[in-house]
Amino acid sequence: MEESVRLLRVHTDDGLRDAVLTEDDRVVTLAGEPGAFDPAGLRERATAALADVGTAAALDEVRLAAPLSPGKIVCVGLNYADHAAEGGQAAPAEPILFMKAPDTVVGARDDIVIPRGSEKTDWEVELGVVIGRTAAYLDSEAEALEHVAGYVLANDVSERHFQLERGGQWDKGKNAATFCPLGPWILTADEVPDPQAIKLGLDVNGDVLQDGSTANMIFGVAHLVHYISQYMTLYPGDVISTGTPAGVGAGQKPPRFLRKGDVVRVWADGLGEQHSRLVSAS
Amino acid sequence: MEESVRLLRVHTDDGLRDAVLTEDDRVVTLAGEPGAFDPAGLRERATAALADVGTAAALDEVRLAAPLSPGKIVCVGLNYADHAAEGGQAAPAEPILFMKAPDTVVGARDDIVIPRGSEKTDWEVELGVVIGRTAAYLDSEAEALEHVAGYVLANDVSERHFQLERGGQWDKGKNAATFCPLGPWILTADEVPDPQAIKLGLDVNGDVLQDGSTANMIFGVAHLVHYISQYMTLYPGDVISTGTPAGVGAGQKPPRFLRKGDVVRVWADGLGEQHSRLVSAS
Repeated sequence: MEESVRLLRVHTDDGLRDAVLTEDDRVVTLAGEPGAFDPAGLRERATAALADVGTAAALDEVRLAAPLSPGKIVCVGLNYADHAAEGGQAAPAEPILFMKAPDTVVGARDDIVIPRGSEKTDWEVELGVVIGRTAAYLDSEAEALEHVAGYVLANDVSERHFQLERGGQWDKGKNAATFCPLGPWILTADEVPDPQAIKLGLDVNGDVLQDGSTANMIFGVAHLVHYISQYMTLYPGDVISTGTPAGVGAGQKPPRFLRKGDVVRVWADGLGEQHSRLVSAS
Repeated sequence: MEESVRLLRVHTDDGLRDAVLTEDDRVVTLAGEPGAFDPAGLRERATAALADVGTAAALDEVRLAAPLSPGKIVCVGLNYADHAAEGGQAAPAEPILFMKAPDTVVGARDDIVIPRGSEKTDWEVELGVVIGRTAAYLDSEAEALEHVAGYVLANDVSERHFQLERGGQWDKGKNAATFCPLGPWILTADEVPDPQAIKLGLDVNGDVLQDGSTANMIFGVAHLVHYISQYMTLYPGDVISTGTPAGVGAGQKPPRFLRKGDVVRVWADGLGEQHSRLVSAS
Protein backbone atom coordinates (compact mmCIF):
# COMPACT_ATOMS: atom_id res chain seq x y z
CA MET A 1 0.00 0.00 0.00
CA GLU A 2 1.23 3.43 -0.86
CA GLU A 3 1.69 5.95 1.87
CA SER A 4 -1.55 7.74 2.52
CA VAL A 5 -1.64 11.48 2.19
CA ARG A 6 -3.98 14.25 3.19
CA LEU A 7 -4.31 16.74 0.36
CA LEU A 8 -5.16 20.38 0.91
CA ARG A 9 -5.17 23.62 -0.95
CA VAL A 10 -4.12 26.89 0.62
CA HIS A 11 -4.33 30.51 -0.37
CA THR A 12 -0.84 32.04 -0.39
CA ASP A 13 0.43 35.48 -1.31
CA ASP A 14 1.39 33.93 -4.64
CA GLY A 15 -2.06 32.43 -5.23
CA LEU A 16 -3.70 29.07 -4.74
CA ARG A 17 -1.37 26.16 -4.00
CA ASP A 18 -1.65 22.43 -3.47
CA ALA A 19 -0.43 21.32 -0.07
CA VAL A 20 -0.07 18.22 2.00
CA LEU A 21 -0.46 17.57 5.70
CA THR A 22 2.29 15.82 7.67
CA GLU A 23 1.51 13.18 10.27
CA ASP A 24 1.92 15.81 12.95
CA ASP A 25 -0.55 18.15 11.19
CA ARG A 26 1.86 20.59 9.64
CA VAL A 27 1.15 21.96 6.18
CA VAL A 28 3.72 21.58 3.42
CA THR A 29 2.89 23.81 0.48
CA LEU A 30 3.83 22.60 -2.99
CA ALA A 31 5.26 24.88 -5.65
CA GLY A 32 3.34 25.91 -8.74
CA GLU A 33 -0.26 26.56 -9.57
CA PRO A 34 -2.68 23.68 -9.11
CA GLY A 35 -3.64 22.04 -12.38
CA ALA A 36 -6.56 19.74 -13.10
CA PHE A 37 -7.33 17.30 -10.32
CA ASP A 38 -4.79 14.52 -10.63
CA PRO A 39 -4.68 12.27 -7.58
CA ALA A 40 -1.82 10.13 -8.87
CA GLY A 41 0.44 13.01 -9.87
CA LEU A 42 -0.35 14.92 -6.73
CA ARG A 43 0.42 11.89 -4.58
CA GLU A 44 3.83 11.63 -6.22
CA ARG A 45 4.60 15.27 -5.53
CA ALA A 46 3.17 15.00 -2.04
CA THR A 47 5.23 11.94 -1.19
CA ALA A 48 8.37 13.71 -2.34
CA ALA A 49 7.46 16.77 -0.29
CA LEU A 50 6.79 14.69 2.82
CA ALA A 51 10.15 12.94 2.45
CA ASP A 52 11.95 16.26 2.70
CA VAL A 53 9.91 18.61 4.85
CA GLY A 54 11.63 21.94 5.22
CA THR A 55 9.62 24.74 6.73
CA ALA A 56 6.03 23.74 7.34
CA ALA A 57 3.24 25.87 8.72
CA ALA A 58 0.83 24.94 11.45
CA LEU A 59 -2.60 23.97 10.15
CA ASP A 60 -4.21 26.77 12.12
CA GLU A 61 -1.99 29.36 10.50
CA VAL A 62 -2.67 28.72 6.83
CA ARG A 63 -5.57 30.14 4.82
CA LEU A 64 -7.42 27.01 3.80
CA ALA A 65 -9.09 26.74 0.41
CA ALA A 66 -11.31 23.85 -0.58
CA PRO A 67 -9.01 20.91 -1.32
CA LEU A 68 -10.23 20.64 -4.90
CA SER A 69 -12.46 22.36 -7.44
CA PRO A 70 -14.95 19.65 -8.31
CA GLY A 71 -16.06 19.18 -11.89
CA LYS A 72 -19.54 18.38 -10.66
CA ILE A 73 -21.11 17.63 -7.31
CA VAL A 74 -23.74 14.91 -7.26
CA CYS A 75 -25.74 14.86 -4.04
CA VAL A 76 -27.75 12.00 -2.61
CA GLY A 77 -31.01 12.76 -0.83
CA LEU A 78 -32.54 10.98 2.17
CA ASN A 79 -29.73 8.43 2.37
CA TYR A 80 -29.98 7.77 6.11
CA ALA A 81 -33.22 6.23 7.37
CA ASP A 82 -33.26 8.39 10.51
CA HIS A 83 -32.93 11.57 8.41
CA ALA A 84 -35.73 10.50 6.06
CA ALA A 85 -37.91 9.75 9.08
CA GLU A 86 -37.28 13.11 10.75
CA GLY A 87 -38.58 14.80 7.60
CA GLY A 88 -41.63 12.55 7.54
CA GLN A 89 -40.44 10.89 4.33
CA ALA A 90 -40.24 7.23 3.43
CA ALA A 91 -36.81 5.74 2.91
CA PRO A 92 -36.20 5.83 -0.86
CA ALA A 93 -36.24 2.64 -2.92
CA GLU A 94 -33.22 3.83 -4.88
CA PRO A 95 -30.87 6.80 -4.56
CA ILE A 96 -32.37 10.25 -5.04
CA LEU A 97 -29.90 12.46 -6.91
CA PHE A 98 -29.65 16.22 -7.17
CA MET A 99 -26.82 18.65 -7.89
CA LYS A 100 -24.83 21.48 -6.45
CA ALA A 101 -22.88 23.72 -8.80
CA PRO A 102 -19.10 23.75 -8.28
CA ASP A 103 -19.26 27.52 -7.74
CA THR A 104 -20.95 26.92 -4.37
CA VAL A 105 -17.74 25.41 -2.94
CA VAL A 106 -15.82 27.22 -0.19
CA GLY A 107 -13.10 26.18 2.23
CA ALA A 108 -13.44 24.60 5.66
CA ARG A 109 -13.07 27.87 7.56
CA ASP A 110 -14.87 30.19 5.17
CA ASP A 111 -18.08 31.98 6.04
CA ILE A 112 -21.45 30.60 4.99
CA VAL A 113 -23.67 33.34 3.59
CA ILE A 114 -27.36 33.25 4.53
CA PRO A 115 -29.21 34.19 1.33
CA ARG A 116 -31.37 37.30 1.21
CA GLY A 117 -34.86 36.52 2.37
CA SER A 118 -33.84 33.20 3.89
CA GLU A 119 -35.59 32.01 7.04
CA LYS A 120 -34.59 28.36 6.76
CA THR A 121 -30.88 28.00 6.09
CA ASP A 122 -30.01 24.53 7.34
CA TRP A 123 -27.00 22.22 7.73
CA GLU A 124 -26.13 18.68 6.59
CA VAL A 125 -22.85 17.01 7.52
CA GLU A 126 -21.95 14.55 4.76
CA LEU A 127 -19.23 12.19 3.63
CA GLY A 128 -17.92 13.41 0.27
CA VAL A 129 -16.49 10.88 -2.16
CA VAL A 130 -13.81 12.18 -4.53
CA ILE A 131 -13.71 10.33 -7.84
CA GLY A 132 -10.23 9.34 -9.04
CA ARG A 133 -10.96 7.40 -12.23
CA THR A 134 -13.63 7.90 -14.87
CA ALA A 135 -16.64 5.75 -14.07
CA ALA A 136 -19.33 5.02 -16.66
CA TYR A 137 -21.70 2.06 -16.59
CA LEU A 138 -19.71 0.18 -13.97
CA ASP A 139 -20.54 -3.50 -14.14
CA SER A 140 -20.70 -4.09 -10.41
CA GLU A 141 -20.40 -2.54 -7.00
CA ALA A 142 -17.28 -4.63 -6.53
CA GLU A 143 -15.27 -2.39 -8.82
CA ALA A 144 -16.78 0.88 -7.62
CA LEU A 145 -14.27 1.70 -4.88
CA GLU A 146 -11.38 1.42 -7.34
CA HIS A 147 -12.77 4.62 -8.86
CA VAL A 148 -12.57 6.55 -5.60
CA ALA A 149 -9.49 8.72 -5.00
CA GLY A 150 -10.40 9.70 -1.48
CA TYR A 151 -12.88 11.21 0.91
CA VAL A 152 -13.65 14.74 1.96
CA LEU A 153 -15.87 16.32 4.58
CA ALA A 154 -18.84 18.24 3.14
CA ASN A 155 -21.61 20.42 4.51
CA ASP A 156 -24.58 20.28 2.14
CA VAL A 157 -26.00 23.64 3.21
CA SER A 158 -29.68 23.88 2.27
CA GLU A 159 -32.38 26.52 2.29
CA ARG A 160 -35.50 24.49 3.09
CA HIS A 161 -38.04 27.03 1.92
CA PHE A 162 -36.26 27.46 -1.41
CA GLN A 163 -35.76 23.68 -1.66
CA LEU A 164 -39.23 22.46 -0.78
CA GLU A 165 -41.75 25.26 -0.91
CA ARG A 166 -40.95 27.20 -4.08
CA GLY A 167 -42.05 24.88 -6.81
CA GLY A 168 -40.53 21.70 -7.98
CA GLN A 169 -36.96 20.64 -7.76
CA TRP A 170 -34.58 20.67 -4.78
CA ASP A 171 -31.68 22.34 -6.63
CA LYS A 172 -33.26 25.76 -6.00
CA GLY A 173 -32.44 25.47 -2.30
CA LYS A 174 -29.03 23.87 -2.66
CA ASN A 175 -27.09 26.30 -4.82
CA ALA A 176 -26.71 29.62 -3.04
CA ALA A 177 -23.15 30.94 -2.98
CA THR A 178 -21.02 29.33 -0.21
CA PHE A 179 -23.50 26.46 0.24
CA CYS A 180 -20.83 23.76 -0.12
CA PRO A 181 -18.00 23.97 2.42
CA LEU A 182 -15.51 21.21 1.50
CA GLY A 183 -12.48 19.99 3.38
CA PRO A 184 -10.22 20.73 5.15
CA TRP A 185 -8.51 17.90 3.27
CA ILE A 186 -8.93 14.91 0.97
CA LEU A 187 -7.98 11.71 2.75
CA THR A 188 -6.70 9.21 0.21
CA ALA A 189 -8.84 6.12 -0.15
CA ASP A 190 -6.10 3.73 0.94
CA GLU A 191 -6.39 5.27 4.38
CA VAL A 192 -10.08 4.32 4.59
CA PRO A 193 -10.45 0.55 4.82
CA ASP A 194 -14.23 0.81 5.22
CA PRO A 195 -16.10 3.94 4.12
CA GLN A 196 -19.17 2.58 5.94
CA ALA A 197 -17.53 2.92 9.35
CA ILE A 198 -16.93 6.66 9.58
CA LYS A 199 -18.47 8.65 12.42
CA LEU A 200 -19.53 12.15 11.52
CA GLY A 201 -21.31 14.96 13.28
CA LEU A 202 -22.09 18.61 13.62
CA ASP A 203 -22.72 21.20 16.28
CA VAL A 204 -24.07 24.74 16.15
CA ASN A 205 -22.60 27.10 18.74
CA GLY A 206 -21.54 24.02 20.70
CA ASP A 207 -24.92 22.25 20.66
CA VAL A 208 -24.35 18.80 19.20
CA LEU A 209 -27.14 18.28 16.67
CA GLN A 210 -25.85 15.56 14.35
CA ASP A 211 -23.92 12.56 15.60
CA GLY A 212 -24.04 9.68 13.16
CA SER A 213 -22.11 7.04 11.30
CA THR A 214 -21.84 6.12 7.65
CA ALA A 215 -22.73 2.63 8.85
CA ASN A 216 -26.33 3.84 8.77
CA MET A 217 -26.40 4.88 5.13
CA ILE A 218 -29.23 3.27 3.16
CA PHE A 219 -27.04 3.10 0.05
CA GLY A 220 -23.34 2.78 0.76
CA VAL A 221 -20.49 4.35 -1.17
CA ALA A 222 -19.89 1.39 -3.49
CA HIS A 223 -23.59 1.19 -4.30
CA LEU A 224 -23.75 4.92 -5.01
CA VAL A 225 -20.73 5.03 -7.32
CA HIS A 226 -22.03 2.05 -9.27
CA TYR A 227 -25.58 3.44 -9.37
CA ILE A 228 -24.68 6.97 -10.40
CA SER A 229 -22.38 5.67 -13.14
CA GLN A 230 -25.46 4.22 -14.88
CA TYR A 231 -27.02 7.71 -15.23
CA MET A 232 -24.06 10.00 -15.76
CA THR A 233 -20.33 9.72 -16.26
CA LEU A 234 -18.21 10.38 -13.18
CA TYR A 235 -14.86 12.01 -13.88
CA PRO A 236 -11.74 12.49 -11.74
CA GLY A 237 -12.37 15.39 -9.42
CA ASP A 238 -16.13 14.93 -9.29
CA VAL A 239 -17.58 14.71 -5.79
CA ILE A 240 -20.50 12.63 -4.54
CA SER A 241 -22.03 14.03 -1.37
CA THR A 242 -23.58 10.97 0.16
CA GLY A 243 -26.41 12.30 2.30
CA THR A 244 -26.80 13.29 5.92
CA PRO A 245 -27.80 11.52 9.13
CA ALA A 246 -30.62 12.75 11.38
CA GLY A 247 -30.38 16.04 13.18
CA VAL A 248 -30.81 18.74 10.55
CA GLY A 249 -32.45 21.97 11.60
CA ALA A 250 -35.74 21.20 9.88
CA GLY A 251 -35.96 18.02 11.94
CA GLN A 252 -35.55 19.70 15.35
CA LYS A 253 -38.61 20.16 17.53
CA PRO A 254 -39.23 23.00 17.10
CA PRO A 255 -37.26 23.50 13.87
CA ARG A 256 -34.04 25.48 14.25
CA PHE A 257 -32.29 27.30 11.45
CA LEU A 258 -29.03 29.17 11.08
CA ARG A 259 -28.77 32.82 12.04
CA LYS A 260 -26.11 35.45 11.49
CA GLY A 261 -23.26 34.95 13.95
CA ASP A 262 -23.83 31.22 14.45
CA VAL A 263 -20.78 28.96 14.16
CA VAL A 264 -21.22 25.52 12.64
CA ARG A 265 -18.62 22.92 13.48
CA VAL A 266 -18.62 19.87 11.21
CA TRP A 267 -16.44 16.83 11.69
CA ALA A 268 -15.81 13.27 10.53
CA ASP A 269 -13.29 10.69 11.65
CA GLY A 270 -10.04 11.15 9.77
CA LEU A 271 -11.46 13.98 7.67
CA GLY A 272 -10.86 16.90 10.01
CA GLU A 273 -13.16 19.69 11.05
CA GLN A 274 -14.91 22.64 9.48
CA HIS A 275 -15.65 25.84 11.37
CA SER A 276 -18.04 28.05 9.46
CA ARG A 277 -19.41 31.36 10.68
CA LEU A 278 -22.78 32.46 9.38
CA VAL A 279 -23.01 35.90 7.82
CA SER A 280 -25.82 37.68 6.00
CA ALA A 281 -25.85 38.34 2.28
CA SER A 282 -24.82 41.92 1.63
CA MET B 1 -24.11 49.84 -30.61
CA GLU B 2 -21.03 47.72 -31.04
CA GLU B 3 -20.76 45.42 -33.99
CA SER B 4 -22.45 42.12 -33.21
CA VAL B 5 -20.41 38.98 -33.40
CA ARG B 6 -21.14 35.28 -33.55
CA LEU B 7 -18.68 33.44 -31.34
CA LEU B 8 -17.67 29.84 -31.94
CA ARG B 9 -15.08 27.38 -30.84
CA VAL B 10 -13.46 24.93 -33.20
CA HIS B 11 -11.24 21.91 -32.79
CA THR B 12 -8.02 22.40 -34.74
CA ASP B 13 -4.91 20.30 -35.11
CA ASP B 14 -3.38 22.59 -32.52
CA GLY B 15 -6.25 22.18 -30.07
CA LEU B 16 -9.38 24.10 -29.15
CA ARG B 17 -9.61 27.65 -30.51
CA ASP B 18 -12.00 30.57 -30.26
CA ALA B 19 -13.40 31.61 -33.60
CA VAL B 20 -15.78 34.12 -35.09
CA LEU B 21 -18.23 33.92 -37.94
CA THR B 22 -18.19 36.51 -40.71
CA GLU B 23 -21.38 37.94 -42.16
CA ASP B 24 -21.08 35.53 -45.06
CA ASP B 25 -20.72 32.56 -42.68
CA ARG B 26 -17.01 31.98 -42.92
CA VAL B 27 -15.08 30.95 -39.82
CA VAL B 28 -12.10 33.02 -38.67
CA THR B 29 -10.08 31.14 -36.08
CA LEU B 30 -8.34 33.18 -33.40
CA ALA B 31 -4.83 32.39 -32.19
CA GLY B 32 -4.09 31.02 -28.76
CA GLU B 33 -5.85 28.71 -26.34
CA PRO B 34 -9.27 29.83 -25.10
CA GLY B 35 -9.15 31.22 -21.60
CA ALA B 36 -12.00 31.75 -19.18
CA PHE B 37 -15.19 33.01 -20.79
CA ASP B 38 -14.67 36.73 -21.35
CA PRO B 39 -17.28 38.23 -23.66
CA ALA B 40 -15.72 41.70 -23.64
CA GLY B 41 -12.18 40.57 -24.37
CA LEU B 42 -13.30 38.07 -26.94
CA ARG B 43 -15.42 40.69 -28.71
CA GLU B 44 -12.35 42.91 -28.96
CA ARG B 45 -10.28 40.13 -30.49
CA ALA B 46 -13.16 39.11 -32.73
CA THR B 47 -13.71 42.62 -34.01
CA ALA B 48 -10.04 42.92 -34.85
CA ALA B 49 -10.11 39.58 -36.63
CA LEU B 50 -13.20 40.51 -38.64
CA ALA B 51 -11.55 43.77 -39.73
CA ASP B 52 -8.71 41.84 -41.31
CA VAL B 53 -9.98 38.49 -42.50
CA GLY B 54 -7.28 36.51 -44.22
CA THR B 55 -8.01 32.89 -44.97
CA ALA B 56 -11.32 31.78 -43.52
CA ALA B 57 -12.87 28.34 -43.62
CA ALA B 58 -16.41 27.48 -44.60
CA LEU B 59 -18.66 26.74 -41.65
CA ASP B 60 -19.32 23.24 -42.95
CA GLU B 61 -15.62 22.43 -43.06
CA VAL B 62 -14.60 23.19 -39.48
CA ARG B 63 -14.89 20.81 -36.56
CA LEU B 64 -17.29 22.65 -34.28
CA ALA B 65 -16.90 22.53 -30.52
CA ALA B 66 -19.45 23.97 -28.12
CA PRO B 67 -18.98 27.76 -28.20
CA LEU B 68 -18.18 27.89 -24.48
CA SER B 69 -17.57 25.68 -21.47
CA PRO B 70 -20.29 26.82 -19.07
CA GLY B 71 -19.52 27.19 -15.38
CA LYS B 72 -22.97 25.89 -14.59
CA ILE B 73 -26.13 25.20 -16.55
CA VAL B 74 -29.38 26.14 -14.89
CA CYS B 75 -32.41 24.67 -16.63
CA VAL B 76 -36.00 25.83 -16.41
CA GLY B 77 -38.77 23.24 -16.43
CA LEU B 78 -42.25 23.51 -17.96
CA ASN B 79 -41.72 27.08 -19.15
CA TYR B 80 -44.09 26.94 -22.13
CA ALA B 81 -47.77 26.39 -21.35
CA ASP B 82 -48.24 24.05 -24.33
CA HIS B 83 -45.34 21.86 -23.18
CA ALA B 84 -46.64 21.69 -19.61
CA ALA B 85 -50.07 20.74 -20.99
CA GLU B 86 -48.73 17.97 -23.26
CA GLY B 87 -47.21 16.34 -20.18
CA GLY B 88 -50.46 16.69 -18.26
CA GLN B 89 -48.88 19.18 -15.85
CA ALA B 90 -50.19 22.52 -14.64
CA ALA B 91 -48.29 25.63 -15.68
CA PRO B 92 -45.94 26.43 -12.78
CA ALA B 93 -46.60 29.41 -10.52
CA GLU B 94 -42.89 30.26 -10.53
CA PRO B 95 -39.89 28.90 -12.41
CA ILE B 96 -38.92 25.30 -11.78
CA LEU B 97 -35.11 24.98 -11.75
CA PHE B 98 -32.87 21.98 -12.22
CA MET B 99 -29.30 21.51 -13.38
CA LYS B 100 -27.18 19.92 -16.03
CA ALA B 101 -23.48 19.39 -15.32
CA PRO B 102 -21.08 21.23 -17.65
CA ASP B 103 -19.53 17.88 -18.59
CA THR B 104 -22.69 17.02 -20.55
CA VAL B 105 -21.94 19.71 -23.14
CA VAL B 106 -21.04 18.77 -26.72
CA GLY B 107 -20.90 20.68 -29.98
CA ALA B 108 -23.65 21.32 -32.50
CA ARG B 109 -22.65 18.47 -34.80
CA ASP B 110 -21.53 15.94 -32.23
CA ASP B 111 -23.29 12.65 -31.64
CA ILE B 112 -25.82 12.23 -28.85
CA VAL B 113 -25.25 8.99 -26.97
CA ILE B 114 -28.35 7.02 -25.93
CA PRO B 115 -27.55 5.76 -22.42
CA ARG B 116 -27.41 2.05 -21.71
CA GLY B 117 -30.81 0.73 -20.83
CA SER B 118 -32.56 3.82 -22.15
CA GLU B 119 -35.97 3.46 -23.77
CA LYS B 120 -37.02 7.09 -23.48
CA THR B 121 -34.28 9.40 -24.71
CA ASP B 122 -36.08 12.60 -25.69
CA TRP B 123 -35.36 16.04 -27.17
CA GLU B 124 -36.02 19.64 -26.09
CA VAL B 125 -35.06 22.61 -28.26
CA GLU B 126 -34.31 25.56 -25.98
CA LEU B 127 -33.07 29.11 -26.01
CA GLY B 128 -29.86 29.26 -23.98
CA VAL B 129 -28.94 32.51 -22.22
CA VAL B 130 -25.21 33.15 -21.73
CA ILE B 131 -24.44 35.26 -18.68
CA GLY B 132 -21.93 38.07 -19.23
CA ARG B 133 -21.86 39.82 -15.85
CA THR B 134 -22.14 38.41 -12.34
CA ALA B 135 -25.76 38.56 -11.21
CA ALA B 136 -26.71 38.19 -7.55
CA TYR B 137 -29.92 39.46 -5.99
CA LEU B 138 -30.80 41.67 -8.94
CA ASP B 139 -33.20 44.36 -7.82
CA SER B 140 -35.47 44.21 -10.83
CA GLU B 141 -36.17 42.54 -14.13
CA ALA B 142 -35.31 45.85 -15.78
CA GLU B 143 -31.61 45.33 -15.15
CA ALA B 144 -31.57 41.61 -15.93
CA LEU B 145 -30.76 41.79 -19.63
CA GLU B 146 -27.67 43.90 -18.92
CA HIS B 147 -26.22 40.72 -17.42
CA VAL B 148 -26.72 38.69 -20.59
CA ALA B 149 -23.76 38.36 -22.96
CA GLY B 150 -25.63 36.53 -25.66
CA TYR B 151 -27.79 33.62 -26.70
CA VAL B 152 -27.03 30.08 -27.75
CA LEU B 153 -29.07 27.21 -29.11
CA ALA B 154 -29.43 24.28 -26.70
CA ASN B 155 -30.92 20.82 -26.82
CA ASP B 156 -31.88 19.76 -23.29
CA VAL B 157 -31.69 16.03 -24.01
CA SER B 158 -33.66 14.09 -21.42
CA GLU B 159 -34.19 10.46 -20.49
CA ARG B 160 -37.82 10.44 -19.32
CA HIS B 161 -37.70 7.16 -17.43
CA PHE B 162 -34.58 8.23 -15.55
CA GLN B 163 -36.04 11.71 -15.01
CA LEU B 164 -39.53 10.82 -13.85
CA GLU B 165 -39.78 7.17 -12.90
CA ARG B 166 -36.64 6.42 -10.89
CA GLY B 167 -37.25 8.24 -7.66
CA GLY B 168 -37.26 11.89 -6.94
CA GLN B 169 -35.39 14.60 -8.73
CA TRP B 170 -35.21 15.32 -12.46
CA ASP B 171 -31.41 15.69 -12.59
CA LYS B 172 -31.06 11.90 -12.87
CA GLY B 173 -32.49 12.01 -16.38
CA LYS B 174 -30.76 15.17 -17.53
CA ASN B 175 -27.08 14.44 -17.03
CA ALA B 176 -25.98 11.56 -19.22
CA ALA B 177 -22.84 12.26 -21.24
CA THR B 178 -23.58 14.30 -24.43
CA PHE B 179 -27.01 15.39 -23.16
CA CYS B 180 -26.36 19.10 -23.77
CA PRO B 181 -25.54 19.99 -27.38
CA LEU B 182 -24.76 23.74 -27.40
CA GLY B 183 -24.22 26.05 -30.34
CA PRO B 184 -23.15 26.32 -33.10
CA TRP B 185 -22.46 29.87 -31.89
CA ILE B 186 -23.15 32.51 -29.28
CA LEU B 187 -25.02 35.44 -30.80
CA THR B 188 -24.14 38.59 -28.88
CA ALA B 189 -27.05 40.16 -27.03
CA ASP B 190 -26.92 43.42 -28.98
CA GLU B 191 -28.05 41.45 -32.00
CA VAL B 192 -31.21 40.32 -30.19
CA PRO B 193 -33.53 43.29 -29.64
CA ASP B 194 -36.23 41.06 -28.13
CA PRO B 195 -35.38 37.62 -26.74
CA GLN B 196 -39.11 36.91 -26.56
CA ALA B 197 -39.49 36.96 -30.33
CA ILE B 198 -37.27 34.07 -31.40
CA LYS B 199 -38.71 31.18 -33.35
CA LEU B 200 -37.22 27.80 -32.59
CA GLY B 201 -37.89 24.27 -33.63
CA LEU B 202 -36.73 20.72 -34.10
CA ASP B 203 -37.16 17.81 -36.44
CA VAL B 204 -36.21 14.15 -36.21
CA ASN B 205 -35.27 12.53 -39.49
CA GLY B 206 -37.08 15.37 -41.23
CA ASP B 207 -40.35 15.13 -39.25
CA VAL B 208 -40.99 18.57 -37.76
CA LEU B 209 -41.94 17.94 -34.14
CA GLN B 210 -41.29 21.24 -32.38
CA ASP B 211 -42.11 24.60 -33.95
CA GLY B 212 -42.47 27.33 -31.38
CA SER B 213 -41.55 30.83 -30.35
CA THR B 214 -40.01 32.29 -27.22
CA ALA B 215 -43.04 34.61 -27.28
CA ASN B 216 -44.87 31.74 -25.60
CA MET B 217 -42.58 31.38 -22.61
CA ILE B 218 -44.41 31.58 -19.30
CA PHE B 219 -41.42 33.30 -17.69
CA GLY B 220 -39.35 35.38 -20.09
CA VAL B 221 -35.58 35.81 -20.10
CA ALA B 222 -35.53 38.95 -17.96
CA HIS B 223 -37.83 37.35 -15.40
CA LEU B 224 -35.67 34.23 -15.29
CA VAL B 225 -32.35 36.04 -14.84
CA HIS B 226 -33.82 38.18 -12.07
CA TYR B 227 -35.53 35.20 -10.44
CA ILE B 228 -32.57 32.82 -10.53
CA SER B 229 -30.27 35.52 -9.14
CA GLN B 230 -32.28 35.43 -5.90
CA TYR B 231 -31.41 31.74 -5.37
CA MET B 232 -27.91 31.41 -6.73
CA THR B 233 -25.18 33.65 -8.12
CA LEU B 234 -24.91 33.71 -11.88
CA TYR B 235 -21.37 34.16 -13.20
CA PRO B 236 -20.03 35.05 -16.65
CA GLY B 237 -20.12 31.92 -18.76
CA ASP B 238 -23.05 30.35 -16.93
CA VAL B 239 -25.91 29.26 -19.17
CA ILE B 240 -29.65 29.32 -18.46
CA SER B 241 -31.57 26.87 -20.63
CA THR B 242 -34.99 28.43 -20.69
CA GLY B 243 -37.36 25.54 -21.32
CA THR B 244 -38.92 23.95 -24.36
CA PRO B 245 -42.13 24.44 -26.34
CA ALA B 246 -44.59 21.62 -27.05
CA GLY B 247 -43.62 18.69 -29.21
CA VAL B 248 -41.22 16.59 -27.15
CA GLY B 249 -41.22 12.86 -27.73
CA ALA B 250 -43.06 12.06 -24.51
CA GLY B 251 -45.88 14.34 -25.67
CA GLN B 252 -46.42 12.62 -29.03
CA LYS B 253 -49.41 10.33 -29.45
CA PRO B 254 -48.16 7.68 -29.21
CA PRO B 255 -44.91 8.74 -27.51
CA ARG B 256 -41.86 8.67 -29.74
CA PHE B 257 -38.29 8.46 -28.48
CA LEU B 258 -34.86 8.62 -30.07
CA ARG B 259 -33.28 5.54 -31.57
CA LYS B 260 -29.80 4.75 -32.84
CA GLY B 261 -29.29 6.30 -36.26
CA ASP B 262 -31.87 9.07 -35.85
CA VAL B 263 -30.75 12.58 -36.77
CA VAL B 264 -32.08 15.49 -34.73
CA ARG B 265 -32.02 18.90 -36.35
CA VAL B 266 -32.46 21.81 -33.94
CA TRP B 267 -32.74 25.43 -34.99
CA ALA B 268 -33.57 28.92 -33.75
CA ASP B 269 -33.70 32.24 -35.59
CA GLY B 270 -30.25 33.79 -35.66
CA LEU B 271 -28.74 31.00 -33.59
CA GLY B 272 -27.99 28.50 -36.34
CA GLU B 273 -28.67 24.78 -36.49
CA GLN B 274 -27.60 21.65 -34.74
CA HIS B 275 -27.39 18.29 -36.47
CA SER B 276 -26.97 15.47 -33.98
CA ARG B 277 -26.81 11.79 -34.84
CA LEU B 278 -27.98 9.33 -32.23
CA VAL B 279 -25.59 6.54 -31.30
CA SER B 280 -25.72 3.85 -28.61
CA ALA B 281 -23.55 3.85 -25.54
CA SER B 282 -20.68 1.43 -26.01
